[in-house]
Amino acid sequence: MACIVMKFGGSSVADLEKLRHVAGMIAAVKSRGFDVAVVVSAMGKTTDKLVSMAREISDNPPRREMDMLLSTGERITMALLSMALNAKGLAAVSLTGSQAGIITNDRHTDAQVIEVRPFRVQDELARGKVVIVGGFQGVSYKRDITTLGRGGSDTTAVALAAALDAERCEIYSDVDGVYSTDPALVDEARHLPELSYPVMQEMSTSGAKVLNAHAVQFAKQKQIAVYARSTFGTGRQTVIRRFSPGALLGVVAVVSQRRVALVRIEARDALATFKQAAAVLEKEQVPIKEVNAIEARQGRSGSKVSFVVAGSDVYGWEKIRSGLEERFGDAIAFEEGLAAVSLIGEGLMRNNTTLLRTLALLERNGIRIAGVATTSFRISILVAEERLEDTVKLCHRRWISG
Amino acid sequence: MACIVMKFGGSSVADLEKLRHVAGMIAAVKSRGFDVAVVVSAMGKTTDKLVSMAREISDNPPRREMDMLLSTGERITMALLSMALNAKGLAAVSLTGSQAGIITNDRHTDAQVIEVRPFRVQDELARGKVVIVGGFQGVSYKRDITTLGRGGSDTTAVALAAALDAERCEIYSDVDGVYSTDPALVDEARHLPELSYPVMQEMSTSGAKVLNAHAVQFAKQKQIAVYARSTFGTGRQTVIRRFSPGALLGVVAVVSQRRVALVRIEARDALATFKQAAAVLEKEQVPIKEVNAIEARQGRSGSKVSFVVAGSDVYGWEKIRSGLEERFGDAIAFEEGLAAVSLIGEGLMRNNTTLLRTLALLERNGIRIAGVATTSFRISILVAEERLEDTVKLCHRRWISG
Repeated sequence: MACIVMKFGGSSVADLEKLRHVAGMIAAVKSRGFDVAVVVSAMGKTTDKLVSMAREISDNPPRREMDMLLSTGERITMALLSMALNAKGLAAVSLTGSQAGIITNDRHTDAQVIEVRPFRVQDELARGKVVIVGGFQGVSYKRDITTLGRGGSDTTAVALAAALDAERCEIYSDVDGVYSTDPALVDEARHLPELSYPVMQEMSTSGAKVLNAHAVQFAKQKQIAVYARSTFGTGRQTVIRRFSPGALLGVVAVVSQRRVALVRIEARDALATFKQAAAVLEKEQVPIKEVNAIEARQGRSGSKVSFVVAGSDVYGWEKIRSGLEERFGDAIAFEEGLAAVSLIGEGLMRNNTTLLRTLALLERNGIRIAGVATTSFRISILVAEERLEDTVKLCHRRWISG
Repeated sequence: MACIVMKFGGSSVADLEKLRHVAGMIAAVKSRGFDVAVVVSAMGKTTDKLVSMAREISDNPPRREMDMLLSTGERITMALLSMALNAKGLAAVSLTGSQAGIITNDRHTDAQVIEVRPFRVQDELARGKVVIVGGFQGVSYKRDITTLGRGGSDTTAVALAAALDAERCEIYSDVDGVYSTDPALVDEARHLPELSYPVMQEMSTSGAKVLNAHAVQFAKQKQIAVYARSTFGTGRQTVIRRFSPGALLGVVAVVSQRRVALVRIEARDALATFKQAAAVLEKEQVPIKEVNAIEARQGRSGSKVSFVVAGSDVYGWEKIRSGLEERFGDAIAFEEGLAAVSLIGEGLMRNNTTLLRTLALLERNGIRIAGVATTSFRISILVAEERLEDTVKLCHRRWISG
């Protein structure tokens, strides 16, 4: 039987009344003859509350224990949603990440899904049950509970959809899809009804909150169509699927990320220095966003390493910075208080026009450019954080709504 | 190395400050050179809050989902306590019931511990870590999360102590041990410094709240000494261990249980009828406390079956009663609103003196006796619930404080 995976974010299950509404939506899909697997987040602000308790207990709680703590949030939701479905007369069963076969590495608080072994999910679906899986969590090969980091429930949903060979994956949240930029920043933000996998992936990596980049990667691998919808909305949606010939070329979105830091290290051996710095970051599980330049002029003094770290990805940035300062002393410099603004679209770098015109536009408006990085789907520009809003507005007007 | 198991109840870990106090107590024991395994309950009223959410969602939530929901409470405590210990520089690791090898049957919401396989606990202790285990929870052979029912964290603690061959098991709560009766009911209640396993077991079965009867059974099997202490108290305690020659004979305690129902069924074939009734109760996992009489005069009309059910043990009594009424119609009668008052002690029934004098005492005071049951450690008397307090006071004054 065709299977649909439905994922509900924290605001969609924030209280018991909303949980009942969600149970009704699930029942409607089930009654149309689909097998239904559901992935849920923690209710409303539950995760924030648990995090603040942990912070009150310890400045630096062990990551494994953070995962033990935070994974309880989704378990509360899934048990209550299962009860709500059973109360409607619909057989349902809740499964933990571990029970659902979400196998991860042991990178606690930011684990990667390595494999999904959905045998138990399949068994329960075959018995006609709605299966509710706790999002955001998995189990490591060491049999410890792990969590998948920010937006991890999306990853659970899409990875599960891929493993179940689902017809599609529906991601329900409090917004009705993906916009050309953050509507809270720019009034002219446009709703995007359709996006390709790589464009959505670049948007997520660069700061768009609607869908996790890792989730999009799973969808791409197995060509699962992902529908981003509002739980309480009118029916507008964004479909993320294989690139269609009619898709737009050029800039389709302007996304941004706050709390970005540019780290520069003066070094005799740039490559060795970079490795040392990366080791410090790796120990604390900090992803490096961009390595702007490794001027590996080996043996010559005066060479430089620089890279970009996004503070919002980082757990305990203060501690990491002191670790780096201790290691490199005067040779290291931090430029903090930056933001990254990224233009996203197919074929952006086929020629240099978009990049050059954007740089000229920002210069004309007195916006200092601290750095630039590009891929074939993205042009990212580092600016001072207080100029983020201006930069986003200028770029959006120039390339999308202008 | 000698191992001590410490168990902390909900009131001992009700907030973060208390958690820190408990962390200090653990550190003190650890510093004396013991291996320490800790068992924790959910913080304060967490379990009650989760239960009331479930009740709001459903009149009759599936037991499996109740277990999924309720087991999160202990997981929050154990993760936070592990963080508090790590913050003190003490290596600690939290383990779920499943990770700690607490294997149960699949009788959800009231599961029995079948086996403890504490390999991971032993490994972590051998690494010098304090191991913190979530109480009240286990895992069934079907790999589902189960909970152990009322007072289940005691069972976790003692079963773990037995499996680890611990030197002793310390149960910390908000009272400093076991009393001769409920101090809230009777001012003259006496603190009991020492009790044998069977006396404690009868007390727990008959309504004493300090320690779970199942836990005492585990302690008895492996001869683990159990210390009941107050977390914030002065050092008074009750030790439960093998019967010592100096232990008191006669009535040592008067305990009581509210919401008791006496069920009577008129039947032609009393034994077959009892089996049918027991099947209805078994389906809903209701334990039968006493089968008062099976007057199995087979083939003769007018024979009777009667048994006692304690409402406080029962999950959804209204539903069970209608099930029985549906099955037996006019032949069944319920006497509700009863209480059981039990005198506990070694050798109580060596002769009939204690029983006869107690019955005479109650009759003199106008207390109607709805039923009597005895074992060699216990005399239980059913009275109207509104006479419970009088009955307890009269018995306590006559046999203990008089």
